[in-house]
Amino acid sequence: MKSEPQQFASDNYAGICPEAWAATEAANGGSVPAYGEDAWTKRASDAFRDLFDKPDAEVFFAFNGTAANSLALASLCQSYHSVICSASAHVETDECGAPEFFSNGSKLLVAASPDGKLTPALIRGLATGRSDIHFPKPRVVTITQPTETGQLYTLDEIRAVSAGCRDLGLRLHMDGARFANACASLGCEPAEMTWKAGVDLLCFGGTKNGMAAGEAILFFDPALAEDFGYRCKQAGQLASKMRFLTAPWVGMLEGGAWIRNAAHANACARRLAGAVAECPGFTAMFPVEANAVFLKASPERLDALRDRGWRFYTFIGGGARFMFAWDSEPERIDALVRDIRAVSSAVPDRLSASG
Amino acid sequence: MKSEPQQFASDNYAGICPEAWAATEAANGGSVPAYGEDAWTKRASDAFRDLFDKPDAEVFFAFNGTAANSLALASLCQSYHSVICSASAHVETDECGAPEFFSNGSKLLVAASPDGKLTPALIRGLATGRSDIHFPKPRVVTITQPTETGQLYTLDEIRAVSAGCRDLGLRLHMDGARFANACASLGCEPAEMTWKAGVDLLCFGGTKNGMAAGEAILFFDPALAEDFGYRCKQAGQLASKMRFLTAPWVGMLEGGAWIRNAAHANACARRLAGAVAECPGFTAMFPVEANAVFLKASPERLDALRDRGWRFYTFIGGGARFMFAWDSEPERIDALVRDIRAVSSAVPDRLSASG
Amino acid sequence: MKSEPQQFASDNYAGICPEAWAATEAANGGSVPAYGEDAWTKRASDAFRDLFDKPDAEVFFAFNGTAANSLALASLCQSYHSVICSASAHVETDECGAPEFFSNGSKLLVAASPDGKLTPALIRGLATGRSDIHFPKPRVVTITQPTETGQLYTLDEIRAVSAGCRDLGLRLHMDGARFANACASLGCEPAEMTWKAGVDLLCFGGTKNGMAAGEAILFFDPALAEDFGYRCKQAGQLASKMRFLTAPWVGMLEGGAWIRNAAHANACARRLAGAVAECPGFTAMFPVEANAVFLKASPERLDALRDRGWRFYTFIGGGARFMFAWDSEPERIDALVRDIRAVSSAVPDRLSASG
Amino acid sequence: MKSEPQQFASDNYAGICPEAWAATEAANGGSVPAYGEDAWTKRASDAFRDLFDKPDAEVFFAFNGTAANSLALASLCQSYHSVICSASAHVETDECGAPEFFSNGSKLLVAASPDGKLTPALIRGLATGRSDIHFPKPRVVTITQPTETGQLYTLDEIRAVSAGCRDLGLRLHMDGARFANACASLGCEPAEMTWKAGVDLLCFGGTKNGMAAGEAILFFDPALAEDFGYRCKQAGQLASKMRFLTAPWVGMLEGGAWIRNAAHANACARRLAGAVAECPGFTAMFPVEANAVFLKASPERLDALRDRGWRFYTFIGGGARFMFAWDSEPERIDALVRDIRAVSSAVPDRLSASG
Repeated sequence: MKSEPQQFASDNYAGICPEAWAATEAANGGSVPAYGEDAWTKRASDAFRDLFDKPDAEVFFAFNGTAANSLALASLCQSYHSVICSASAHVETDECGAPEFFSNGSKLLVAASPDGKLTPALIRGLATGRSDIHFPKPRVVTITQPTETGQLYTLDEIRAVSAGCRDLGLRLHMDGARFANACASLGCEPAEMTWKAGVDLLCFGGTKNGMAAGEAILFFDPALAEDFGYRCKQAGQLASKMRFLTAPWVGMLEGGAWIRNAAHANACARRLAGAVAECPGFTAMFPVEANAVFLKASPERLDALRDRGWRFYTFIGGGARFMFAWDSEPERIDALVRDIRAVSSAVPDRLSASG
Repeated sequence: MKSEPQQFASDNYAGICPEAWAATEAANGGSVPAYGEDAWTKRASDAFRDLFDKPDAEVFFAFNGTAANSLALASLCQSYHSVICSASAHVETDECGAPEFFSNGSKLLVAASPDGKLTPALIRGLATGRSDIHFPKPRVVTITQPTETGQLYTLDEIRAVSAGCRDLGLRLHMDGARFANACASLGCEPAEMTWKAGVDLLCFGGTKNGMAAGEAILFFDPALAEDFGYRCKQAGQLASKMRFLTAPWVGMLEGGAWIRNAAHANACARRLAGAVAECPGFTAMFPVEANAVFLKASPERLDALRDRGWRFYTFIGGGARFMFAWDSEPERIDALVRDIRAVSSAVPDRLSASG
Repeated sequence: MKSEPQQFASDNYAGICPEAWAATEAANGGSVPAYGEDAWTKRASDAFRDLFDKPDAEVFFAFNGTAANSLALASLCQSYHSVICSASAHVETDECGAPEFFSNGSKLLVAASPDGKLTPALIRGLATGRSDIHFPKPRVVTITQPTETGQLYTLDEIRAVSAGCRDLGLRLHMDGARFANACASLGCEPAEMTWKAGVDLLCFGGTKNGMAAGEAILFFDPALAEDFGYRCKQAGQLASKMRFLTAPWVGMLEGGAWIRNAAHANACARRLAGAVAECPGFTAMFPVEANAVFLKASPERLDALRDRGWRFYTFIGGGARFMFAWDSEPERIDALVRDIRAVSSAVPDRLSASG
Repeated sequence: MKSEPQQFASDNYAGICPEAWAATEAANGGSVPAYGEDAWTKRASDAFRDLFDKPDAEVFFAFNGTAANSLALASLCQSYHSVICSASAHVETDECGAPEFFSNGSKLLVAASPDGKLTPALIRGLATGRSDIHFPKPRVVTITQPTETGQLYTLDEIRAVSAGCRDLGLRLHMDGARFANACASLGCEPAEMTWKAGVDLLCFGGTKNGMAAGEAILFFDPALAEDFGYRCKQAGQLASKMRFLTAPWVGMLEGGAWIRNAAHANACARRLAGAVAECPGFTAMFPVEANAVFLKASPERLDALRDRGWRFYTFIGGGARFMFAWDSEPERIDALVRDIRAVSSAVPDRLSASG
């Protein structure tokens, strides 16, 4: 089927990067044991242990982020416990109740947070608001790094959150659907941003990073991983031809594609944000710290952009979201910039534009 | 990583067939909408509707058979209902309680059946054994075509089962993890074996048929599919880059690879079964009607086979199971035949051999 | 154990009223079939059908409100559906995630509502905010009559809510933990306030109305009750000696104790509210329309009341909640009034008192 | 409603014994805190701790056995674990899938056991049959004392079972729906039969022992009880007017009614069994060790008994089941004996009688 011009509506619109593809191709030969008893799965797991400098980490592979995050959270709490998250966290807003389903009823306690980031104070507020058996007991905190709108927790912020969690007897989970983008942006080691900062459990996203599908679940405390393999199997997340879920990870991790892909996507976001920073009628809604750019503009201007063939979502605050991936083409970004500039000049401002 | 000689321990040991691969490659270009809003997914769905001659069928795609079957069954019953299946059905023996998990507690009522096939009488026995609220109410029957041991329901048998189900107010689900092998063996149209014979819901397996991963769920009665997309999403079975789960189906279905692959695998099974039919000390445990061969032999003979480098499972009745796939090599089968013959002659019989 | 002076901290602090007691005593003789196959259960069910002028209503009995409401809601939605309720609804704030547990994950969508009442506009806002499969699909609305803070929906308001529900394809459930108080206050027939106004399902509370335990679940559309008996049994809500859960209902309903008890409790609330209406430093937080009185006062004044031996909760807005029951003693209310007046005079106002 | 002649169809047909009644009456006065924060609940809990000579036991109260056993088992395993029980265990045969529901999918692994008793060998067989992630991992064993058919585990047998469990890393739960009958029959201390013999968790039945409703859940290892109060609340098993669920326990335990009631019921069973032991055409199906008598007889003889006004169930092996309770009247038993003898003489034997 013929290809259309590249869009930046989602980093899920991108295909499979060459390194993941090559590893899949390499894995596609001969008879290979099923259900993870194969050499590729071992190699991918070891690559994660190396990358995180944590030889005793337990690594599992799920098909997607919905399952990875939900299974991870379910492993940390019972049905009568609760999970503290930001009101804009993906587990709250876009998983169709998956965390509640996999945990058989755990409630999400949401903190209103302008930038989608939790703070020790927000966590404490939710964790200590109730202490009676008529309300689910808080047991785990989940933070998204980077957030849905592309903001980052600094290492200090993560450490502060994890210290707050420890004080309250809470576990700390990180939704890293775009973990690589965070690493690339902060320029830090994966270990620093996770277990060394007090994160118990990480879901490391592969799909948005350049794979066809797949998310890795990393338990930094092996004791927490007890029987997690059974949990994955029962929940429909154990691949029979597992090598095709794990070989791509080998391709991503061993040669550094994971961080290169992310750095490229981040650079693309900065390229767009920088180029339109001064465009009248278009305002950046959030600091650009990862691979997302959100631009506030009048409905007329957004329509004008659409008329020029651009696709984008506006579900967050009504602004236009642009997400970049490993394959984002600079020329195409420049085309977008040109169209934004043109729309900026051509479409008059209105009083209601910033509303 | 270097490849080892081909084994027939499982049809999950095989890789991705050329047609599925080519379609994946073709899908790997450009920006493509996520979550199934893409042309590949539409095309795969249409290919299923065409193949089953059922333009109003609703088609969904899950990552694997555990999820596909469990979600399908859960859509047909509530937690206080029960599912009638054979004692050797995969949903009972090898899904780690997934049907119970996805349905939040539906009980499987198992019929002891020597060949793994249900009959109207067996179904009636289980469905009418209890009619009080202290025991889960039967609501759905699941049959596996072909069975775990490679037997087939004839069309008449399926029609009889479905008629029995209708009499009892039960829905009929077909676990078609190896559906293609059944079609190839019976030489019938998919429609004849399913909706025309009274099947409400089919899980059509892609993994064992030559894909990397993936199972299609076909609702022949669209009314039963209400909100099923939500169910899939919540249960972690909605792929973001959906095209990579659906394009391979296009490759499999449009050019007929699905039936060629299955026919080849079935022929391989007959090749082995035919060649060792007269080998003293090796006895076929089941009629070879699909892609499986089960050989009963003494532990000494099985060990001798293993010593010659062959891998196989013995979890069904202690016999050696050999499963063939789209890529099974005739030469390698012949090598297995030679080794079985050699072991047959070299290892003496024992009284306990057939025990 | 010796009795202490009566408190008005909760209507759950009251005992069993004479009519419920007498019926229990009457039921305590001879051999009686278990699990609801007894004459008392039939008689109680019929009494409900009579009371609601609905001969085809289906009636079930649960041990408590947590279960009754959760089972009722679960019967109206699947795990990937959502329930619209007020932010102060008991199912959201005080059931420890029971609705999510019994439904295996249905999400509660909460509307901020100052008085705890839903309106068609609030419902429409929540029901139409999202229509994609990434968020649970709204399927049922639950209203509490009276609300947690003692406000009532008028009949017109209920009709408007139900009309709004029908437009949106939503079912309407009424949490009637204090349903009798609503009837007594509005002076209307139970039928008018429920099925004639478009309510599909009612949980009618017995515990707060004078029973030891028990809640009735009334399906006004019998089709919705399909297999609900199995649901109750599986969920641990089928009493073996059912007569002891149902005979008290006979005692409550047949002679009118249910409405007398409620009228008394409502009158007690008005008695308190009226007597302290002019007390400086004590302000009614909500209109007194049922059996609850909430009084805002400074922490010093509340402490002073506690020092005089009064127990009350302050979990709603920091005010003192007083709840009245069938057994509330006018003399004791007058004693409370005297103490409030005394505290009103003795404890000085502070600037922060009303904060 | 008028009382009919006493029947022995079930020990659930009996009413409330005087001691439970008196305690309920005593509890029915004054304002009493809700949700278990009352003196009666503390006193009942302490009475259990005294009775079991285990000051640190954690005690919870559920409405019925379905919930008590299911919640207890759910607290010991996750959804991907399994529970080993006898094929005739009540949790398997008569709870409508409640254990699967409360645990969100734990599978029951049933051992065929002629007398309903598990042995270390049976447990080991089920516990070690599978050790792969494709089948739920055994985590807990449940034994019923006495069994559904009235047999008892000796103390040595319990100790052997618990030793076997410990070897296999399994927890041991005892379903004591008729625990008192076991104590009365074995003449042993509750502690000997439970925690001193290695039982981790006991559900102690009150309903069949003479109460209106109620089951106690005793954790002998307090660590296992972590957050169990939340579990009960979420699952609809926390009574608001808790005193009415717990005061009866005070009445039962403090004065010894619990054991007297059970001893009486056991004696009644022996009275019947002894009196009909020599009746031609009636054969005891099981040793009479508790309060149950099962009599095998021809359909004609059973019909003849029914014609004489007797009600009984035949769901176990087609024999007539008679269950005795605290209120069983010796005269009425003697009337049953006379009728059995009459039927024994009057109805001729048939060849098929014992089939």
